[in-house]
Formats: sequence, structure tokens, C-alpha cells
Amino acid sequence: MTARTPNYDFRLALGARVRTSPFFDATVAAGVTHFTVYNHMLMPVTYGDPAGEYRRLRESVAVWDVSVQRQIEVRGPQAHELAQLLSTRDLTGMAVGQGKYAPMCDHQGRILNDPLLLRAEPDAYWFSIADNDSLLWARAVGNERALDVEVRELEVAPLAVQGPKAEDTVAALLGDWVRDIKFFHYQPATVEEIPLLVGRAGWSKQGGFELYLLDPARGTDLWNRVMEAGEPYDIGPGAPNYIERMESGLFSLRTDAPDDADPFEVGLGRWVDIDSDVEFIGKEALAAKAAAGLQRELVGVFIDGEGIPPAIRPWPVFCDGRAVGTVRSTAHSPWLEANIGFAFVDAPANRPGTRLQVDMGNERRWATVTPLPFSPDARP
Amino acid sequence: MTARTPNYDFRLALGARVRTSPFFDATVAAGVTHFTVYNHMLMPVTYGDPAGEYRRLRESVAVWDVSVQRQIEVRGPQAHELAQLLSTRDLTGMAVGQGKYAPMCDHQGRILNDPLLLRAEPDAYWFSIADNDSLLWARAVGNERALDVEVRELEVAPLAVQGPKAEDTVAALLGDWVRDIKFFHYQPATVEEIPLLVGRAGWSKQGGFELYLLDPARGTDLWNRVMEAGEPYDIGPGAPNYIERMESGLFSLRTDAPDDADPFEVGLGRWVDIDSDVEFIGKEALAAKAAAGLQRELVGVFIDGEGIPPAIRPWPVFCDGRAVGTVRSTAHSPWLEANIGFAFVDAPANRPGTRLQVDMGNERRWATVTPLPFSPDARP
Repeated sequence: MTARTPNYDFRLALGARVRTSPFFDATVAAGVTHFTVYNHMLMPVTYGDPAGEYRRLRESVAVWDVSVQRQIEVRGPQAHELAQLLSTRDLTGMAVGQGKYAPMCDHQGRILNDPLLLRAEPDAYWFSIADNDSLLWARAVGNERALDVEVRELEVAPLAVQGPKAEDTVAALLGDWVRDIKFFHYQPATVEEIPLLVGRAGWSKQGGFELYLLDPARGTDLWNRVMEAGEPYDIGPGAPNYIERMESGLFSLRTDAPDDADPFEVGLGRWVDIDSDVEFIGKEALAAKAAAGLQRELVGVFIDGEGIPPAIRPWPVFCDGRAVGTVRSTAHSPWLEANIGFAFVDAPANRPGTRLQVDMGNERRWATVTPLPFSPDARP
Repeated sequence: MTARTPNYDFRLALGARVRTSPFFDATVAAGVTHFTVYNHMLMPVTYGDPAGEYRRLRESVAVWDVSVQRQIEVRGPQAHELAQLLSTRDLTGMAVGQGKYAPMCDHQGRILNDPLLLRAEPDAYWFSIADNDSLLWARAVGNERALDVEVRELEVAPLAVQGPKAEDTVAALLGDWVRDIKFFHYQPATVEEIPLLVGRAGWSKQGGFELYLLDPARGTDLWNRVMEAGEPYDIGPGAPNYIERMESGLFSLRTDAPDDADPFEVGLGRWVDIDSDVEFIGKEALAAKAAAGLQRELVGVFIDGEGIPPAIRPWPVFCDGRAVGTVRSTAHSPWLEANIGFAFVDAPANRPGTRLQVDMGNERRWATVTPLPFSPDARP
């Protein structure tokens, strides 16, 4: 028995059940080495240079194939009504081209997805979903309420351009007008007759854009044009970065919390409009949860000791010998020069400064609770 | 450019978002080399000896970690009512311990899952689901209709024992009484205090059992006891076998057909009880489809030429120069001594004997339509 988690190395079996992205050939040509599966589709995770991929995201610009952010479209005369029922945000007055981070909850207030919701057309809303089949949820609700809508998954593939040089890159690709695009706003664009929506968004805190490819046959063309536009800015291939997203306190559905968590427990309470006048699924249960206060919470932890392996299974955590939850993501942060993790723990072990023990399998480590997002000043 | 599909070789990135099975450690110890992701969980695909894994399934006995067949439980005073709404089978009179192959359809008659449904207790039904989040579908319908039920995913992990020596193996493990278990019937059992349900079922036509592990902490123990029981019968690790299941004509959700297919189009029409007295979701739409007749169909194809690579993306197929559908699974069958595939094609190209051209990327092959399941006598 070693004192460390085994260094697992498995191959990925391929087959038509797991879909390839429109950028698949381009990512293979760019040297992708590791994939995961997300929304029944292959997602590149690394091109074999994790340090370089992290550096480019924080210092220059990175391109990510995030086609796995599938777009679930609700379209029809009652599209607004269904979109509102499915979202914990007040969608009143949402403009065409505007996006909102809009958690979805079930009737019991459990979070079931946390999409970016875009009003793509007056009668069409697109949910850019995390890893589950929200399509089924939306179809069930729409049909059970006999709403006049069609719900389907679109052949739309987001490509993310992220990092401090992302704006220069996308401006070189599409024109300086993109510098005026506001956060979470999307506009139509074309490059070499490739139809796109371009929006300022992305799953990092380094700034950037998402290019929604509207013609799946043009994936390689778009990838290559973006790479050419970013060449002066040290562009390179990457993927949603598990270190940076933790440093920035960004929530990852399924990774960070059990399936019965609610938005308040995972830090999404500010995107739950329980005081609005609109009706949405789960509103009553969420109001009761808000009134009751937090029994569990997703918090940051600084973990003692040398470099830490990534948690591939939730690791139990203990406070004063009592099991209080799990650590579900870990990384060594170059920015913070510390081991960090996300822990989902029972109150009162969520209090900043609480000392926890993390059971990594064959080794236990001490850790210190800290608020999210992480701050260098909070290091113990 | 080569004349063949590239021989892709990618690694699998690991993380807590994709769950490990209770048998994970045992499968690693047994030498698993390739995984896929199914229902947000790692599923072993091969242990590096595909020929041996196929042979044991057809000639002796194989053990498969199929924990990814997640059990969605519907429990409560109105469990029967919800289970019936979700199933295209007439569930009237279903006994405790009895299972039924029970497709689930949406209101438009599109197939959304094809579970084995088990009546586990008088007020509890378990859906053993294929690869999608039917949990969300079941919860939405139950909540929208305000039924008195709880819907959840259980910590239950199926282990399949399949092949002509599966009965001898399970009898050696649990006793000769298991030989009397009828097809699709389940009974409680224990071995070394490991709580199980044992049923005669499994995703092959070679016969066998499923052991539902009810205590996820005992995965390695159960795996080892099964391996010991099967040792005299040439037991070995394996996985749901993509060759044998094609030979046997078993349907694979997502792999074989587009998401808008209906049960008739994929050969599941005999499990749609449109003439029964019970109400279920999609019944009206399915009756209309049955009356209209097949416009598309999942058929077998014998593919000409030498050994064929597996299709990792749907391959377009043509009839008289016209695009008529896709081939979505292919294999060389040792039993049939032929290349076989599943094709989803428009009528009338579904007629047995129709000659099709399959576009494998950089190579086209001729193929001949044949009814499912495959028969050696049907070879062209």
C-alpha cells in the first residue's frame, strides 16, 4: 500500500453512443491527449501540457472546445412561459441577445442544472447546459402543462476563447466592434461565411468570449481561423481549467456537491429570485430553505502538505473526529502557491478557519476552511 | 490520407464528476484497460483481451461491472400509478420480484429509455436505465401530477454474470435454488452477509444472471466471491459485448438510432401495449405511429470486404446514390464470419436484400440489408 492515490491511467473506449464534437478533428490535429464525457459527448481535457494550458489562460489566450455545453432550445408562442418556469431567475424584460446565469431547480428546490440562458429570438430561449439531460426535464414540464412550445437540442457548438488576450483575438477574427459586447450578451457574426453567435462569456474569471458555431460542418474552419487570429497573442489549445475555476470559485455541477444540494448550499443563492413576482418551479421550497438557513455549504479549503493528487472520488472529511462531508475537487494552485479544494460540509464545519481532516484513502491531511472565491490573503 | 478510420488512442481524464462504481477497485485489480462513461459513471469496456472476452461470453462465463445501469426508484402510495404512466407496457398484475422490459416514451412517442423495470416491493418500482437522466423525467411527471411518490436514484450496483456457465457459477455462489429462477425474476439472497437481489437477466443472449449489490461497500468482496465460484468454469472479466449484442440484435439506446426515434422504428414495438386499457405517456402518439406504418427502421447489414473498424461516428449510407440514413455500429462477427452493422435507414431501403453503400470516411463499402437478429442463413 502506498501513501498516495494510485496514478490511474486508462484508455477511453470510443463508439457512436458518445458523440464527437464538430471540433473533434481539429482537437485531434492539435494533439488532444485526454478526454472526458459530458452530456454524452467527448470533451477535450488536456493536450498534454497542463502547465502551459494554465499559463496561457491566465496570461495570454486559450481556445476550448466546449461543444458539450449543449443548447436546449425552448421555442414557440409560450417559450417565455416555459423558460420562466424552468429558471430561478426573474426573466421579465430579458432582451433578445441577452444571457443570464439561471439555475434550474426541481419542485423540491434541488438544483438540477446551472445554465447560461440566452434569449436567442423573441420566441426562442437557449439553455447552455451543464452535464445532465435537462432536455427531458424541459420536455416533461412543457408537455405536462400543455404549453405551446417545442423543446429540442440544437446542432450548435460553443467554442470558448478565454484569457486576457481573448478580446484582441476575437477582435482580430471578427472586428473591433466585438470590444463593445457587454458581459453575457450575444450577437450574430460571420467569418468566411461561417455563421456564429458571439458573446462575452465563458467558464473562467480571466475574461473572454464564446463563439457559438451554428453550422456543425464548419468546426475545423472556425478552429483554424481562431488559431490564426490569436497567433500574435500566444494562443494555444486548452480546456475548462480545473485549477483556475477552483481559484475563481466557479461551481461545477455534479463535481462539487451531491445531487440533492440546493442553490444556497453551493453559493448560487444570489441567482434565486424568491422575492420576485414570477412563478417558477421550486420557488416555494426554495423560500422555505432560505428561511431555514444553511445546514450544509460548499466552501474552499487550503490543504496542508506537499503537492496533492486530484480527487477522483469524493474524499471524506472529518471535524473533531466526526464525518462532516466530502472534498470533491483538489489541485495545487500556482497563483495561490497552495493546495486548494472544494469541500461540501455540514454546518458549523463550514465556518472559515475550521480545521478539517481529509481522508485521501491511505493518507490524511489537515485542511483549513476558507470562503469562496479563494484569496491569497486568506491563506493560513 | 489513409483509406481507413484513424486508429484513435486517447486517455480518459478522471474526476469526481464522473462516478466510480462499487466494483471499481476490483476491475482495476483485474486489469481493466478501457472505460467509457455511462450515466455519469465509469464503465469498464475491455480488459485488453477482446477475443478472450467474446469467447468466454459465448463458451463459458463472463463477469461484467454494469453498475452504470442505475436504479431509479419510484416509491410511495402512488408508485404503481407513476410507473405505469412512464412505461409503454401494461403493468397490471405485476408481481413483486417480477421484471419487465419496459420502454419509456415521451408525449410525442419518442423513445427516451428502455429499462428493465422491476417491482421490488409492493410500493416500489425500480427502473434499470440505459444512458440518460430518466430520473429527471420521472421526477417532473410525478411532481407535475402531484403524485404521492418519491423518485430517487438508489445506491444499487448490478453485476452481470453472463454465458452458458453463468448458471453453474451463480449456483456455486448462492446454491442450486437459483436454477429455478425464471427469466426476468429477482429474489433476495446473501453471500457472506453481502445483501443482494439475484435475477435471471442480462444484456446478452447467452443466458445469465444479474446480482444487484445492495451494499456499495462490499463491491470487491462480491466480485471476488463470484470469481472464485466461477473459477472451475473458466470465468473471466468482461463487459457488455458490442459484438455479441449486435449478433443477437439487442438494441443500444443512443448508439443505434437518433434521439427522435420511436419504439417501432428500433424493433421494440412488441413492448408497446397500445391495445391495453392502461394509460401511459405517449400512448396516443404511438397509436398514430403504429397506424401510419414505418418510415424508418433499424436493420442489420452485412458489410462486404475485409475486417472493419468500429464506427465511432455515424457513417452515412446511400441507396442508389441517395442518402438514406446512417450505420452506427459495426463489428466483425466471429460467429457469422462476416462484417456486421446496425443501420438506421429510411423506407424502402430497410427491405431485406437492399444493397447500400456505407461511407466510412475515406472508403466506401457495399452492404446488404438483413433482418434483426442476424442469422447465418441470411448471409449474402
